[in-house]
Amino acid sequence: MSDFIRFDGRALDELRPVRITRNFTTNPAGSVLVEFGNTRVMCTASVEYGVPRFKKDSGEGWLTAEYSMLPSATHERMPRESMKGKVKGRTHEISRLVGRSLRAAVDLRELGENTIQLDCDVLQADGGTRTASITGAYVALADAVAHLKEAGVVPGEPLLDPIAAVSVGIIDGRPSLDLPYEEDSRAEVDLNVVMASSGNFVEIQGTGEHGLFGRAELNQMLDLAEKGCYELIEAQKAALGWN
Amino acid sequence: MSDFIRFDGRALDELRPVRITRNFTTNPAGSVLVEFGNTRVMCTASVEYGVPRFKKDSGEGWLTAEYSMLPSATHERMPRESMKGKVKGRTHEISRLVGRSLRAAVDLRELGENTIQLDCDVLQADGGTRTASITGAYVALADAVAHLKEAGVVPGEPLLDPIAAVSVGIIDGRPSLDLPYEEDSRAEVDLNVVMASSGNFVEIQGTGEHGLFGRAELNQMLDLAEKGCYELIEAQKAALGWN
Amino acid sequence: MSDFIRFDGRALDELRPVRITRNFTTNPAGSVLVEFGNTRVMCTASVEYGVPRFKKDSGEGWLTAEYSMLPSATHERMPRESMKGKVKGRTHEISRLVGRSLRAAVDLRELGENTIQLDCDVLQADGGTRTASITGAYVALADAVAHLKEAGVVPGEPLLDPIAAVSVGIIDGRPSLDLPYEEDSRAEVDLNVVMASSGNFVEIQGTGEHGLFGRAELNQMLDLAEKGCYELIEAQKAALGWN
Amino acid sequence: MSDFIRFDGRALDELRPVRITRNFTTNPAGSVLVEFGNTRVMCTASVEYGVPRFKKDSGEGWLTAEYSMLPSATHERMPRESMKGKVKGRTHEISRLVGRSLRAAVDLRELGENTIQLDCDVLQADGGTRTASITGAYVALADAVAHLKEAGVVPGEPLLDPIAAVSVGIIDGRPSLDLPYEEDSRAEVDLNVVMASSGNFVEIQGTGEHGLFGRAELNQMLDLAEKGCYELIEAQKAALGWN
Amino acid sequence: MSDFIRFDGRALDELRPVRITRNFTTNPAGSVLVEFGNTRVMCTASVEYGVPRFKKDSGEGWLTAEYSMLPSATHERMPRESMKGKVKGRTHEISRLVGRSLRAAVDLRELGENTIQLDCDVLQADGGTRTASITGAYVALADAVAHLKEAGVVPGEPLLDPIAAVSVGIIDGRPSLDLPYEEDSRAEVDLNVVMASSGNFVEIQGTGEHGLFGRAELNQMLDLAEKGCYELIEAQKAALGWN
Amino acid sequence: MSDFIRFDGRALDELRPVRITRNFTTNPAGSVLVEFGNTRVMCTASVEYGVPRFKKDSGEGWLTAEYSMLPSATHERMPRESMKGKVKGRTHEISRLVGRSLRAAVDLRELGENTIQLDCDVLQADGGTRTASITGAYVALADAVAHLKEAGVVPGEPLLDPIAAVSVGIIDGRPSLDLPYEEDSRAEVDLNVVMASSGNFVEIQGTGEHGLFGRAELNQMLDLAEKGCYELIEAQKAALGWN
Repeated sequence: MSDFIRFDGRALDELRPVRITRNFTTNPAGSVLVEFGNTRVMCTASVEYGVPRFKKDSGEGWLTAEYSMLPSATHERMPRESMKGKVKGRTHEISRLVGRSLRAAVDLRELGENTIQLDCDVLQADGGTRTASITGAYVALADAVAHLKEAGVVPGEPLLDPIAAVSVGIIDGRPSLDLPYEEDSRAEVDLNVVMASSGNFVEIQGTGEHGLFGRAELNQMLDLAEKGCYELIEAQKAALGWN
Repeated sequence: MSDFIRFDGRALDELRPVRITRNFTTNPAGSVLVEFGNTRVMCTASVEYGVPRFKKDSGEGWLTAEYSMLPSATHERMPRESMKGKVKGRTHEISRLVGRSLRAAVDLRELGENTIQLDCDVLQADGGTRTASITGAYVALADAVAHLKEAGVVPGEPLLDPIAAVSVGIIDGRPSLDLPYEEDSRAEVDLNVVMASSGNFVEIQGTGEHGLFGRAELNQMLDLAEKGCYELIEAQKAALGWN
Repeated sequence: MSDFIRFDGRALDELRPVRITRNFTTNPAGSVLVEFGNTRVMCTASVEYGVPRFKKDSGEGWLTAEYSMLPSATHERMPRESMKGKVKGRTHEISRLVGRSLRAAVDLRELGENTIQLDCDVLQADGGTRTASITGAYVALADAVAHLKEAGVVPGEPLLDPIAAVSVGIIDGRPSLDLPYEEDSRAEVDLNVVMASSGNFVEIQGTGEHGLFGRAELNQMLDLAEKGCYELIEAQKAALGWN
Repeated sequence: MSDFIRFDGRALDELRPVRITRNFTTNPAGSVLVEFGNTRVMCTASVEYGVPRFKKDSGEGWLTAEYSMLPSATHERMPRESMKGKVKGRTHEISRLVGRSLRAAVDLRELGENTIQLDCDVLQADGGTRTASITGAYVALADAVAHLKEAGVVPGEPLLDPIAAVSVGIIDGRPSLDLPYEEDSRAEVDLNVVMASSGNFVEIQGTGEHGLFGRAELNQMLDLAEKGCYELIEAQKAALGWN
Repeated sequence: MSDFIRFDGRALDELRPVRITRNFTTNPAGSVLVEFGNTRVMCTASVEYGVPRFKKDSGEGWLTAEYSMLPSATHERMPRESMKGKVKGRTHEISRLVGRSLRAAVDLRELGENTIQLDCDVLQADGGTRTASITGAYVALADAVAHLKEAGVVPGEPLLDPIAAVSVGIIDGRPSLDLPYEEDSRAEVDLNVVMASSGNFVEIQGTGEHGLFGRAELNQMLDLAEKGCYELIEAQKAALGWN
Repeated sequence: MSDFIRFDGRALDELRPVRITRNFTTNPAGSVLVEFGNTRVMCTASVEYGVPRFKKDSGEGWLTAEYSMLPSATHERMPRESMKGKVKGRTHEISRLVGRSLRAAVDLRELGENTIQLDCDVLQADGGTRTASITGAYVALADAVAHLKEAGVVPGEPLLDPIAAVSVGIIDGRPSLDLPYEEDSRAEVDLNVVMASSGNFVEIQGTGEHGLFGRAELNQMLDLAEKGCYELIEAQKAALGWN
């Protein structure tokens, strides 16, 4: 990496300050406030006994996720989706990404016929809300699974190794880690990576709407993402007291 | 008041601990976290230049409000209204109450053709979410008006005297101030009072679904509400540095 | 009361002419046309055997209400809510008020597992549609309960004492009873009162969007409301042949 | 026609008692209560200055219609469409039929750029609600056009000759005029006919879901419909004082 | 018939070229592409075991239909109904017509408690999409019933004689068979006829929005429709290999 | 690549038979039927003069896309989204992917203030519907741009080099190209790649819901995708007569 300094003083391969606050609220089984710089997301994991119809009598559990932005989270207030009566495509897309990603962190067979509902509500948005959501949701999930085990309703060990997510982009030709809104909005290429602590990928989504990308750039971006995800997983473990 | 002690250790005429945190988030013109005990609401005031069609060319501004609960705010997770595609009657009713109440705290003619949008998003619910919303929203409104004045777009002095709101109820025959969920759910009578610092009422809503109430009980409840609102207005002023 | 004469010739404490027509239509168990001056509401009570899920196996019945305005009820035609695909907040708010109020007029335990659905459809609106709805709905409810008892499906005596509702307002400083649209639209303060025949309150909702109100004014308004409700209850009893 | 007597005492070619009450409500430009036996429909015609976008600057006016049933109009209460958030296909279909039919009774070029909105709200349903709606709507339309002409905003003579509508069916092999619900629900063939006073057809809709029909039966039914429509047009004229 | 030649070279009583392609797609039990000139509709018949609630335990089956236009089917692209969140009245109206018509081609008692779902999706629209849909749907239905019988789940012989549908109109005073969009859009009168192979009618819908019509014209149009339907039934039989 | 033979006889790096039919329908500016084996998608490009509000007066054009499945496209019929009144998350997600991808194939500045609307309607689904949609949409886009240029409304040369898309997966540990439903449903890892003819990526989306994947597997999959996309681009060029 070059020693180029970004507009916010970070090196190209440097994460924004990460904060993970457990027990942010008390009603859900797991409740986490995750902060990637100025991006702040409340991630909760609620437990429901029983599973949706398509999982009935499978002996397995289910996990699903909903992502949403509070209307005042963004610089310009956005209309509230409930008032418009429809959910935007972007919201659906991210909810689905969070759900898929976190299902890779849980063994549904070990969960019994219980459902974990993740909610990622963005209180303040400054880029990377989907990756912060995934990273925070893992911690809320871990707390919820612990709660289920204490309650004696989980037959096995459903929680798998940590997963975390980070964004990478190419801005003015420079691969850069963990993009705030200022960078994200003008990145040529944007890559979101969800990685497990083994270093294997759960999901990668790369988009070159403002410029294509070749294998070499993809590899540079994946290197950065890998570094970022490892650091985020350390932060998750520290928050969970696992170190 | 008798010296009966409530389940949470409070006297009958005692508020729960109140906390008002300004600048809770940074994008909206005003952003406040208000806490009435375990009830926590994020109240923001966003400014939009221009007014809705029915106010066009009136020379006046407008103020409107939306109230919503995060799905994980309650003990049992509630379905997300945006996903169901419709807003519940209760949500509509409270949004309208908050909007009407705060319009009593602003002189729309002094605001110029600007719109203030209040958003009250309940992060954690333990009774009194509508009264906490109104109380917090006044502080966010004050910050937003200050912001508009700094920006030089407000012709006059739109902010009026503080208003605050509190709930009162009759539980087991005892008039009690500021009900948490445990008391609210079994109150015979439930009264929400919005009061200005002059001691006059902005709105009163009393409901006796589980028992009727006479003039005497109404007066006892109004006495309690008055006391609570005066204390809340002190807390607002302290948060705003107005003392 | 002063002897001020209102624009329509009434004294300040005088109701508009009230008419209650039973058996207005023949399909529902109870069907009433209620008229407060030019305000005309068709109130029906339909009976359904069984209860909603949250009341299943409780041994109790349920009562719910829907209020709606026909599009041509108002001076300017309003868009039809079914065509817009969503119900306005005002409609929700009034439906909830009617339901809560009438549940105070019925002992659900004595109803058995039956549901009474009230529908209040405004044919012509001239102020006070919600209070006329409540007043008329009681009569329709009484007829429906009688119908259920005749059918032998009600185990007990579910109907409680009459309730009625009236609006009061302060116009140009004068507390006035039963506001038509012309007065309602320029009232400083607006109070809706639902009262039982015992003189106790079921619900009070006072709003000072165009001007605050103190205890003294509240008491004046409650005096007027009390007088109005007693007269409406007499009209209900006369319509039901209970005198 | 045979001298078979129907369950309600009518001859096969006999209409139910028809009543047309003008000025049923006072806010819309035209307001009519039409009764075909126990079927009762409130038909209103509201006037709006201006036309929808697709008619802008055409020099022509527009006419549109909405039909709806009150939830308590039918024997079994039906869910309210506004609460379900969608309009049933049947409602759409009838609204479109009423609009098309009444557009045949108005010369849009003579109307100027004004819009007439017809609302047909069924207060009580006993078969033939769509034909009663069309028949009543013509009278409301005539009153609204008179109103527009008095207001001096209509350049020409937009109102054309009366149109009326009636249902005919084949029940137990017998062609019968103006079917109440009891007959409609078991008719083999069901034909709705909209006719102008010239004897020409505006619309015919015949359905043989429970049995096909040949030319001979069609002609018998058309004869009955013709007779019925002529009588209804006489009733319209009488109501309008045109005889 | 006169020997007037139409804009596309056809005689007044001549159908457009008809093509019926079976097994157009492979997943549904019946799948047909029907072409009336440039109008092309994909008609499928899907089979579901079981019936809707209102038919449960009746021993009978059910048949229902949905009609829809692809957004790019028309000359000007139309907004997609799913994206608008509501179905247009015209779509509802035609779906209901197709369902009613095809229920006349099946004996539901012989079908057992199975449901046939017809889907008519218009790939390219050039007038007559509803009549092409009905005509093609019969062939898809025949294939689906054959499929059910092979699967051994149908107790009897549910398929009845062929039905077909065609449009007729009066253009510049000339009754004309099978209208393409160019003629349909300027027809004075428009008649859709659904006929069974017996020559009896299933449904007739005639509309004179741009001009009334008398008995003589109706009879001329019915003659044309009869001729057209017989020819279409021959085409259906040929496609099914029934000749 | 090993010489493992897949269930349908293909080698691991072999595409299904590809067919691209231009001018499939005649109303839209571009209309293509694309087939990847049994997957069949109708891709159209419609042109609208003008741009959405957020592009007004930018001098640039816009391109957007909608993807949808016909209800009978899948093995089990799926409910129609328009009837349910909401669009599924999956549909939104794919529509957004198609739009983003094709915007990489057009220079919006050269398009002038025109909008191209792509519609990808799946007639028959057998895996890879989103990649077939993108591949077919490019050809429809090329035809629409040619149409715009002929019409003389496009100032420049908006069409960029071809893009195509293909799916790759790991099934039973074997990286495989272009997955039909049978393979897709049991793939451990699923990667969709959109590539330009330069060999650079427009978008990559890899998901390991049923198993994580490392860099080595990613590279193997990208190799396959590259091969597939080059072949698809050849097919596009052949269809367009560009070779």
